[in-house]
Amino acid sequence: MSRSINLAVVPGDGIGQEVVAQGLKVLAAVLPQDVKLDTKEYDLGARRWHRTGETLPDAELDSLKGHDAILLGAIGDPSVPSGVLERGLLLKLRFAFDHYVNLRPSKLFPNTATPLAGRPDIDFVVVREGTEGPYTGNGGSLRTGTPAEVATEVSLNTAYGVERVVRDAYERANSRPRKKLTLVHKNNVLVYAGHMWKNIFDKVGQEYPEVTTDYLHVDAATIFFVTQPERFDVIVTDNLFGDILTDLAAAVTGGIGLAASGNINPTGEFPSMFEPVHGSAPDIAGTGKADPTATILSVSLLLRHLGYENEAVRIEDAVAADLAERTSDTVRTTDEIGDALAVRVAS
Amino acid sequence: MSRSINLAVVPGDGIGQEVVAQGLKVLAAVLPQDVKLDTKEYDLGARRWHRTGETLPDAELDSLKGHDAILLGAIGDPSVPSGVLERGLLLKLRFAFDHYVNLRPSKLFPNTATPLAGRPDIDFVVVREGTEGPYTGNGGSLRTGTPAEVATEVSLNTAYGVERVVRDAYERANSRPRKKLTLVHKNNVLVYAGHMWKNIFDKVGQEYPEVTTDYLHVDAATIFFVTQPERFDVIVTDNLFGDILTDLAAAVTGGIGLAASGNINPTGEFPSMFEPVHGSAPDIAGTGKADPTATILSVSLLLRHLGYENEAVRIEDAVAADLAERTSDTVRTTDEIGDALAVRVAS
Ligand SMILES: CC(C)[C@H](C(=O)O)[C@@H](O)C(=O)O
Ligand SMILES: CC(C)[C@H](C(=O)O)[C@@H](O)C(=O)O
Repeated sequence: MSRSINLAVVPGDGIGQEVVAQGLKVLAAVLPQDVKLDTKEYDLGARRWHRTGETLPDAELDSLKGHDAILLGAIGDPSVPSGVLERGLLLKLRFAFDHYVNLRPSKLFPNTATPLAGRPDIDFVVVREGTEGPYTGNGGSLRTGTPAEVATEVSLNTAYGVERVVRDAYERANSRPRKKLTLVHKNNVLVYAGHMWKNIFDKVGQEYPEVTTDYLHVDAATIFFVTQPERFDVIVTDNLFGDILTDLAAAVTGGIGLAASGNINPTGEFPSMFEPVHGSAPDIAGTGKADPTATILSVSLLLRHLGYENEAVRIEDAVAADLAERTSDTVRTTDEIGDALAVRVAS
Repeated sequence: MSRSINLAVVPGDGIGQEVVAQGLKVLAAVLPQDVKLDTKEYDLGARRWHRTGETLPDAELDSLKGHDAILLGAIGDPSVPSGVLERGLLLKLRFAFDHYVNLRPSKLFPNTATPLAGRPDIDFVVVREGTEGPYTGNGGSLRTGTPAEVATEVSLNTAYGVERVVRDAYERANSRPRKKLTLVHKNNVLVYAGHMWKNIFDKVGQEYPEVTTDYLHVDAATIFFVTQPERFDVIVTDNLFGDILTDLAAAVTGGIGLAASGNINPTGEFPSMFEPVHGSAPDIAGTGKADPTATILSVSLLLRHLGYENEAVRIEDAVAADLAERTSDTVRTTDEIGDALAVRVAS
């Protein structure tokens, strides 16, 4: 059988370039010989915007559609007004390709730094809704810049959108040993969206009698993230709460240098997109200090999504082994970490 | 000079009753002899709602208006549908009395538990907007309960509302030794409200040249809360982000058993309201396990607001001294902690 992966690569800005190079290095090293890997790089991000004013032209969106998956580094630069690239490129991709499952696993690997005393046992995954909620860009501003300005942000939520992501989360919980699913929302204040989420969560739950369920308000959830993170298995939540919780989750499990994510379109109608949770970190771009591990773990999620489960596991194991051997006095460059992981996955 | 405090007391539900009793005990003990303390208790909360279906009748809202301040315990019970008491009572009070500064100090006292390794030096205060944002109850649901349901939540933000709370935060920052103010929002996604907040923050900042300013997205802020909380001095943020961040802040500074808050109407047009950040904790209600310290520290905020600065400091000092002597093997009841603090503030 001859197999192939037709991958779109969007390195983006800042350290995005550097970490994506390592992700591709490890991908090439882990793939079986018979798998043909084609990559096409897309020049999108801050430089492109400065040069042409474009964030994501239709032609490129169309072309991206033809790939099996997308590997993205990081988008954003202080020289671009806040929101331009986020809304015009990153969120545009997530919405256009219906990435309704934003998957963010959090695991505290042995021998990695956590700010938490006592090193709790952390191994959960956040299923963040990716196409609705406060992220739709719905809202506006009236009398902008005057003392009489009014600005609104509208969180749009549909039963269609909530049910599909909730169902995906139940499936994931059902396939994990602990079979526990926690809904996080704020249904004592955001009563319209919150009650819809909770009702759908309860209704779909009837189809998964083996899954234990729990509900937490988002404020309370942050408390448990730091006092009792071991209580979580799978978490499902809305787009904005998921954004906040997964940065906190990354912080307690070794930092955003390790946090991977997948923007998944489970139906396969559109390519899914894999990216580290961290940003473009312009302050360390070019210094070789960026940790490419988050991107490399995102490549593992990408491989799992495309059906290369063995290869996905090989990357995870390599990262675990690499982290286990890290000591605070061996500081390696981005490139050296990529090399070390490429060697491990190949052997 | 004869002075008096005409205090409204809303014990509310669960442990609310128990902790408020201790707050009043300490208040009585700390006040100078010449200050006349009048208290009036209001029966509001879950029991009232079950009995009469009322959350906050107009007559009681009117009567509350006549007090110098309100001391509130906790509102909420699992037997009441989520949102009924929050929207109908707690948020109604905050909105009706224009509590636009929701003040939440976070300080890691010596000898208290924190989940953070290395015990960072934490001493910041969050100025949470209290009358706008996603908390206005603006939104709705269409085709409720059907697969075609759509639910919205609208975050309403006005320059009027943002400027006054931002200005309050600058004043507070300006009066603290470090003079540092951080705005937390998510202006790369919530561009309408986010840009308005940021523009007003920058504009008002010109009047406070001595205050150092910083901006963080809310997701990044949660990271710093656990990795570098010592970087914060004063934080100003919107209603929902403030809700989330202050629970996390409480978690890293000894837990919600210690977190105090003031819902302040700085103009003095309406009474301000002081309450612990924690909820009604029905699971431990009646067991004597509730820590009344958060309520007692809220009484300190109340005294400071009414101009009793010395008495406010006496309570803070008493709490610090009490915490310093706590050991894990002396477990005291709610009442015993209240007694101990009453003795300390009186001496
Ligand atoms: C850059 C930003 C738009 C993005 C988000 O808010 O989703 C990021 O924080 C993330 O979590 O991927
Ligand atoms: C009970 C709830 C409505 C409230 C809020 O969200 O403001 C609480 O969480 C708080 O922080 O005081």
